[in-house]
Amino acid sequence: DVTLINVFEVPAGQEQRAIAAWEEARDFLKTQPGYVTTTLHQAVTPDARFALINVATWTSAEAFAEATRRMREAGVFPAIEGLKINPALYRVVRGDESGTPEQD
Amino acid sequence: DVTLINVFEVPAGQEQRAIAAWEEARDFLKTQPGYVTTTLHQAVTPDARFALINVATWTSAEAFAEATRRMREAGVFPAIEGLKINPALYRVVRGDESGTPEQD
Repeated sequence: DVTLINVFEVPAGQEQRAIAAWEEARDFLKTQPGYVTTTLHQAVTPDARFALINVATWTSAEAFAEATRRMREAGVFPAIEGLKINPALYRVVRGDESGTPEQD
Repeated sequence: DVTLINVFEVPAGQEQRAIAAWEEARDFLKTQPGYVTTTLHQAVTPDARFALINVATWTSAEAFAEATRRMREAGVFPAIEGLKINPALYRVVRGDESGTPEQD
């Protein structure tokens, strides 16, 4: 599996609209091959720079790329003035244990 | 529990140094009351804006604040020229299921 982390910069006052837009995208993406799970986090720290961060799991980078290509084609994710998204794929490189890196 | 997500902006070529600095901080923080677990993610998407993202769990915001205060006092986290960190606490607001928000 691969981890998709999408870091959102949300203009003031637009959090609920951004969450609603995220829900539309999730409802589309979860029907796509390779989708595993997703979790949307909202900042509780006041004036955090990134108000929303999504952490999702997909079976492969290709499956994620194909699903987002289809989403763009379907025009599902409504544009929100000033909303910046930073989706990228990640792998786990360190955990709780000292000295034994996962892989480098 | 609370989720700490720390989004790192890492200057080019400094990823290994940033990971080493992160390990020093982890080795200190995991001895502190309230620490639960942590996972460091490294971007596999080429030139991702955020090269490293840490997702950790603490029993409370207060425990996290106290641990990081002690870490600063102990001077554990070496400064790396140009490294920007964006630590904030988050809560989960949406998951896989449509229509039943966790809490708003």
